[in-house]
Amino acid sequence: MNDLVITNGMVVSPYGTLRTDVAIKDGKISAMGDRSQLGEAKRTIDAAGKYLLPGVIDAHMHIEAPFQGCIGANDFYTQSVAAAFGGVTSFMDFTNTFKGTSLVEAVRQRKEEMSKSAIDYGIHVKIVEAPESILDEIGKVAELGCPSLKLFMTYKKEGVMADDETMVKVFQKAKEHNALTMIHAENNAIAETNIEQFSRQGKLGWTDFPLSKPVLCEAEAVSRAVHLSKYVGNAVLIVHTTNGEALENASRAQREGHPVYVETCPQYLMLSDELYNDPELGYLAICSPPLRTAEEAEKLWDGIRNGSITVTGSDDCAYSKEEKSMFLQKDADDAVIPDFTKVVNGVAGIETRLPILLSEGVSKGRISINKVCEITSTNVAKLFGCFPQKGIIAPGSDADIVLVDMDKEVTISPEVLHNNLDYSLYEGLVVKGYPVMTIAKGKVIVEDGMFRGSRGDGQFLHRSIDPAITAAYNK
Amino acid sequence: MNDLVITNGMVVSPYGTLRTDVAIKDGKISAMGDRSQLGEAKRTIDAAGKYLLPGVIDAHMHIEAPFQGCIGANDFYTQSVAAAFGGVTSFMDFTNTFKGTSLVEAVRQRKEEMSKSAIDYGIHVKIVEAPESILDEIGKVAELGCPSLKLFMTYKKEGVMADDETMVKVFQKAKEHNALTMIHAENNAIAETNIEQFSRQGKLGWTDFPLSKPVLCEAEAVSRAVHLSKYVGNAVLIVHTTNGEALENASRAQREGHPVYVETCPQYLMLSDELYNDPELGYLAICSPPLRTAEEAEKLWDGIRNGSITVTGSDDCAYSKEEKSMFLQKDADDAVIPDFTKVVNGVAGIETRLPILLSEGVSKGRISINKVCEITSTNVAKLFGCFPQKGIIAPGSDADIVLVDMDKEVTISPEVLHNNLDYSLYEGLVVKGYPVMTIAKGKVIVEDGMFRGSRGDGQFLHRSIDPAITAAYNK
Amino acid sequence: MNDLVITNGMVVSPYGTLRTDVAIKDGKISAMGDRSQLGEAKRTIDAAGKYLLPGVIDAHMHIEAPFQGCIGANDFYTQSVAAAFGGVTSFMDFTNTFKGTSLVEAVRQRKEEMSKSAIDYGIHVKIVEAPESILDEIGKVAELGCPSLKLFMTYKKEGVMADDETMVKVFQKAKEHNALTMIHAENNAIAETNIEQFSRQGKLGWTDFPLSKPVLCEAEAVSRAVHLSKYVGNAVLIVHTTNGEALENASRAQREGHPVYVETCPQYLMLSDELYNDPELGYLAICSPPLRTAEEAEKLWDGIRNGSITVTGSDDCAYSKEEKSMFLQKDADDAVIPDFTKVVNGVAGIETRLPILLSEGVSKGRISINKVCEITSTNVAKLFGCFPQKGIIAPGSDADIVLVDMDKEVTISPEVLHNNLDYSLYEGLVVKGYPVMTIAKGKVIVEDGMFRGSRGDGQFLHRSIDPAITAAYNK
Amino acid sequence: MNDLVITNGMVVSPYGTLRTDVAIKDGKISAMGDRSQLGEAKRTIDAAGKYLLPGVIDAHMHIEAPFQGCIGANDFYTQSVAAAFGGVTSFMDFTNTFKGTSLVEAVRQRKEEMSKSAIDYGIHVKIVEAPESILDEIGKVAELGCPSLKLFMTYKKEGVMADDETMVKVFQKAKEHNALTMIHAENNAIAETNIEQFSRQGKLGWTDFPLSKPVLCEAEAVSRAVHLSKYVGNAVLIVHTTNGEALENASRAQREGHPVYVETCPQYLMLSDELYNDPELGYLAICSPPLRTAEEAEKLWDGIRNGSITVTGSDDCAYSKEEKSMFLQKDADDAVIPDFTKVVNGVAGIETRLPILLSEGVSKGRISINKVCEITSTNVAKLFGCFPQKGIIAPGSDADIVLVDMDKEVTISPEVLHNNLDYSLYEGLVVKGYPVMTIAKGKVIVEDGMFRGSRGDGQFLHRSIDPAITAAYNK
Repeated sequence: MNDLVITNGMVVSPYGTLRTDVAIKDGKISAMGDRSQLGEAKRTIDAAGKYLLPGVIDAHMHIEAPFQGCIGANDFYTQSVAAAFGGVTSFMDFTNTFKGTSLVEAVRQRKEEMSKSAIDYGIHVKIVEAPESILDEIGKVAELGCPSLKLFMTYKKEGVMADDETMVKVFQKAKEHNALTMIHAENNAIAETNIEQFSRQGKLGWTDFPLSKPVLCEAEAVSRAVHLSKYVGNAVLIVHTTNGEALENASRAQREGHPVYVETCPQYLMLSDELYNDPELGYLAICSPPLRTAEEAEKLWDGIRNGSITVTGSDDCAYSKEEKSMFLQKDADDAVIPDFTKVVNGVAGIETRLPILLSEGVSKGRISINKVCEITSTNVAKLFGCFPQKGIIAPGSDADIVLVDMDKEVTISPEVLHNNLDYSLYEGLVVKGYPVMTIAKGKVIVEDGMFRGSRGDGQFLHRSIDPAITAAYNK
Repeated sequence: MNDLVITNGMVVSPYGTLRTDVAIKDGKISAMGDRSQLGEAKRTIDAAGKYLLPGVIDAHMHIEAPFQGCIGANDFYTQSVAAAFGGVTSFMDFTNTFKGTSLVEAVRQRKEEMSKSAIDYGIHVKIVEAPESILDEIGKVAELGCPSLKLFMTYKKEGVMADDETMVKVFQKAKEHNALTMIHAENNAIAETNIEQFSRQGKLGWTDFPLSKPVLCEAEAVSRAVHLSKYVGNAVLIVHTTNGEALENASRAQREGHPVYVETCPQYLMLSDELYNDPELGYLAICSPPLRTAEEAEKLWDGIRNGSITVTGSDDCAYSKEEKSMFLQKDADDAVIPDFTKVVNGVAGIETRLPILLSEGVSKGRISINKVCEITSTNVAKLFGCFPQKGIIAPGSDADIVLVDMDKEVTISPEVLHNNLDYSLYEGLVVKGYPVMTIAKGKVIVEDGMFRGSRGDGQFLHRSIDPAITAAYNK
Repeated sequence: MNDLVITNGMVVSPYGTLRTDVAIKDGKISAMGDRSQLGEAKRTIDAAGKYLLPGVIDAHMHIEAPFQGCIGANDFYTQSVAAAFGGVTSFMDFTNTFKGTSLVEAVRQRKEEMSKSAIDYGIHVKIVEAPESILDEIGKVAELGCPSLKLFMTYKKEGVMADDETMVKVFQKAKEHNALTMIHAENNAIAETNIEQFSRQGKLGWTDFPLSKPVLCEAEAVSRAVHLSKYVGNAVLIVHTTNGEALENASRAQREGHPVYVETCPQYLMLSDELYNDPELGYLAICSPPLRTAEEAEKLWDGIRNGSITVTGSDDCAYSKEEKSMFLQKDADDAVIPDFTKVVNGVAGIETRLPILLSEGVSKGRISINKVCEITSTNVAKLFGCFPQKGIIAPGSDADIVLVDMDKEVTISPEVLHNNLDYSLYEGLVVKGYPVMTIAKGKVIVEDGMFRGSRGDGQFLHRSIDPAITAAYNK
Repeated sequence: MNDLVITNGMVVSPYGTLRTDVAIKDGKISAMGDRSQLGEAKRTIDAAGKYLLPGVIDAHMHIEAPFQGCIGANDFYTQSVAAAFGGVTSFMDFTNTFKGTSLVEAVRQRKEEMSKSAIDYGIHVKIVEAPESILDEIGKVAELGCPSLKLFMTYKKEGVMADDETMVKVFQKAKEHNALTMIHAENNAIAETNIEQFSRQGKLGWTDFPLSKPVLCEAEAVSRAVHLSKYVGNAVLIVHTTNGEALENASRAQREGHPVYVETCPQYLMLSDELYNDPELGYLAICSPPLRTAEEAEKLWDGIRNGSITVTGSDDCAYSKEEKSMFLQKDADDAVIPDFTKVVNGVAGIETRLPILLSEGVSKGRISINKVCEITSTNVAKLFGCFPQKGIIAPGSDADIVLVDMDKEVTISPEVLHNNLDYSLYEGLVVKGYPVMTIAKGKVIVEDGMFRGSRGDGQFLHRSIDPAITAAYNK
């Protein structure tokens, strides 16, 4: 007997939308077909008028991650709950690697920290240096199910920057072990020189922040990462791409056949640098790379449509107002004195990613719901090596399903969201299209606005990437 | 009770390969899932070690089509048999439209001619002129299930050329009625001027043929079609693209977000203009556009990999040696006297398309089997408006399935093929990867090298194209 | 003894500005160097603070040219006077070729008509059909000193359109005889279909005019001309380019090394389609291609800066208000009833070209005065085969010199200009930088605002093009 | 009375070739014009059949420059003699800057070292670090007549590498003081990682050398330099560009209007990496970047033709065989044991640059003699701020003239050259087109194969760059 059957829904995949029913047993999709073919079930959900998407995967977030003196307002359990409300059924975070940290040990620690999650979780391996001992561990962490690495091209002062030599050496090992390397692409010299010069000039307001890391700061780093990866022949994912020039620097290599992939995030599609104009609250929008113009955002939508943008992530960093402002000084009236160098970088977004893509993308006619499926789930699963376990509604796959009501309108506010923050950059935004039920491994974890999952129900995702993803065709 | 269950196979879609079993009932896929979930079946096929691909669709062929004084060696029944051996379970041909022909009447006639087919068939509407009366019929034929049109930018003397004005007007109506327009792109002035000048110069040998319609002859026409379609805002499919410059002229528009699609054919991926060097048999390789260099072919493979080539077709024109040479004069030794202007244009290929893509593509490491699925079936069904009825192995879809054995090696020869020709341009080619069983609408029509289908079993495909295919996003 | 010495001026060439004195004798520059080296002179002109540019050449104008029922308000003498005030010392017009006209005879007639000019004149050969007899004449007119041809890709109804076959055949002969072919690039089918459809829809206002010949109408034709010329291997000059997409279609071929050249005109750099918003006088701005947006104009300035735009011309068509409106109907209040199809195409500009480029270009910091020299004189002379006789201030060259005062400000009005029109599209424009003296073949023909030249002083320019201009490097 | 008159020659400029005579007085061109206009002269040279080019300028060479333990076989006097035989009348070298060196002091020292030269000399300022004190000196050295800087993106171990921060800060100061920054573009991480890894693998042969610094090593660095300069808005010259991908990375920015300039050298146009196949002498061809394939060389010729390559230099490093091999070990048979890491980088070329460009360029039909003038002299003078004193044959300019006989054939050998080396990479090459007389500041310094100049006759070139060269148009 099946545990669950979902009937009358429209099943979405990247390639199309099918009207078929779905049977679930022991956490997996046991069969698909007409209800009459599927046998008995303990529960039947009528999804008439709803879309069934494979559970969203968030492969880019920062939880319980010490950074710039902050740690965030959530832990893996609370964020897994927020995630579930946003249709997310798996997520992946990075090891907290410091100089001297063993990668294997960092994975072990992170696994422990993430084990409280209510949804499945994967681990990317952050690398901040490349001595032989660390390089030797890359094969080991890949074998441990973590074949995805992360390099930062900036944050030298924070001790995490990978220089070119580190990049080349990590790329070589990643290629050898079929791993994907994620790249935070910003030129550190531009960023740091600007902080130094802007500080001297007293130009540290919120509107100065995007000027300190302009489009070319990002575009240069993308170009460098792409050239180095072309040289080595390995696969890279440029994360949180914010603008047309950076995207073009990556997509040129894609057209030549190199395994270069690109991620963007809802904040870059939806928000703009006008948020920095608010002298009081502009600091809440400080994230890296900075928010850009609306014109750049349209180039990102173009990239989603033409396939040069492969996936989306949230880059969620759910810092409270207190954390965002804790190093700022205040004036006599208790108002913050702007100094962008003293604000921890990052914005929240794990729960709003799917709704924003549904609303700004599908409801506004920019993209199809199939494209949303592709960039929130299928391509994420494929890139990171957990397909077809995740990323698709298909027999044998995990029964991770989110039911979407494209007619449901929600006005975003802190009260609507579940991330323990008393503000949202999207506050007041009316989105049309919203997840109404989330099923993880066959269990309904969000229903009727209630969380029904359990702390610790998440399991570690032991991943392995298809060589077709990481290899360039050798002409 | 199911009619058929296929177990243990690897089910291929564009997005991945699943290990799942497939149940079939009343011609459709009734369910997919583990065998234990699927209920009883009259017959079970063990597909262990085999790939299941959605039945191949050939949307580009010319059968029972009077052209340049010839008609071809086959009819729709015999070609449907050959097709089935090549894993093809649906095909589409063009109306035989002449000046003055009503499009509706042309569709009616073609439907009658195609009704003898053993596999499902669709009809494209060839248009050779654009008076109001014809333009008015475009909506009607779309409603009749034929929302795909065909324009030739050359063959003025044969009376089928559409001039720019015709193109613009047809594009406008196609846009209005959500139809896709297929374009044979060759500049007629270059082609005809060359015939005139080459004739005067006595340069009519087989090797002169590709010189008469060089890369730029095709590239210009592609550019023109693309510019006109960008102007109108309609969707076009550039058929039988042969070279990098033509492809780039189309893909530039793709990157800008225009609904421009590109087809290529196995002969352009696999054969080269060296065939024209054979003074005796070079005429057998005369087709339009001409075969190009091996270097151009590699650019087409690049295009398949990076997605700028959307689909493949065969452009099958199965002329016998007699037909290919019937207007040629012979010398005293009964050898043909070369004159490329007297050879009917076209080469056969309906049965060899899938094997060539499997062998040259998958076995040689150029593309994945998922990409083969995409360009032979899924994308074809989507472009031409019969998805998800066709083009995918999914519950509710027609049970059109081809079983592929990637280890099977076959040496191509006329004896191996089923198209009534006593020659093949691929003769001697050893292909690795071959279809071993073909199922159409739940019925096994090819098995153990035997055809088990029936004349007339094919049904007319009443098609309707998803607006997401035909519309540009309106920025 | 020299006839004239000009001292203390700044002598401009494309490559730089020299402080040197210039001696003139017998109509030619006899020597350059310090005044002390140059010997005696009958007259000395002190050009302190002034720039000396080689006399401007206008290779694109239409005078005494019957078109769309009009002929223009000037003859070659009056326009040569206006030209001289604008610093122009040579100009070139087209033969009035009709179907059946012998090219040689057309040149003979035009020579006669132009002989009243006060400045030197050249003749381009318009070709409107390509029978053998006409093709055979191309070599002859080249020998007669007219190695520049003109083809129109539109104006089919006016009987001047060259179809693709004509283009190919003319290109072949042009290549054979080292001639340059000028191309008016607009897609006739788009233009005519729009007139037909707009007429039916009653959309014939001035603002409808640019919609009838949009950017893609021009860009397609440029692409076609470029592809055909790449195929033949001949040199083409795309005239009056108005927008970025058309320019890019040409410059792509330039980068590949093909002899493709581009002209634009001041009206496209300076005016915009907002002129069509004037319901009363919008018709005065009707010209083909239409005026575009200010955004497109900036792309043209980019093209001038990066060298993809080779030359400027005026495309002067000095129609009076009466001629522009003569076929328009009027309402009860004697106001014209808009119908763009009834307005002769063309705007005046021979006298304003240099001032506009000096003011909008040099004074506004967009380009250097050396670039102005290059695109108004040197490149024109080189492209059309009269360099170094014209186009440069150098020993042995014709003493065609215009003195420019970059500080002189002039407000453009009909009174300031000399073209017999009672309106100017530039009326009210304040230009900074103006020609203050014009010397043609050593004779001062404009001085102190007075014309001092003589009817009939102009001589026919027997031209011959350097093969380095017309030939692509054969890799 | 003139000192010299040159009659009957063809005077070459970038824009054309004039038949005019040239008078010289007090080291400068006093007048140009017909002989009859030019007054008396102490000496008359009949240049019938010869071309007069402005004296070649070599702005890229390394003489008396300690590097990798070597210093070269020549001093500024002997190299000025060799240069003169190659038609070079001015040259520029770099300061020998080390960490801690004052730039002003480095200029002073270099001036002293160069004062023995027989031809005029300029100084570029090498910068290897960017503390405030050094940055402050950039304005000073620009005022001292040295507004051209040099940064190396590699050679970290040699202590000269500029990291990104140094680049940004130097670019800012260069922009402020209107200076041009020359860039040696190679990614240091790729180069050093390869040396480390190749050493471990025993892959240190001559053919391994180009693999250690592949095309992408150079292309990445070009891209980075271009992005950083676009960010700052300053002018850069990418020196010794060797391949199409690097060139395209620079020319993309040129098309966008950024002041990015490109140099290449004859060795990259003419020699290929096949030289490394010689196990015995391959080390003589070791230079950075390495020699590439003949296919890449053709892309450089394309770049010269389409203007994306701005200038040529020699990058002359005239090391003797002894120096090139001094750190290599030898085997029992006294043959060198290959180890590319132990060979000083650099090849000679100051004397052969013009002959190679004349022969491979002009005589082989790739480029015109006017283009040779442009890339060896005029553009060099303009870029580096000594135009019109240098770089053009014009009244008032220095009388630096080289007479070229395009019919003269010379077989290159050490005996023919004057650089004190007993080998030449061009040995055996027959060049057609050769300088036959060199005039510097009015004095014939090479005539009839004899050097007639004098040690110390060279003067320091106090340069100042036209802002039109260094500034991007601010849209």
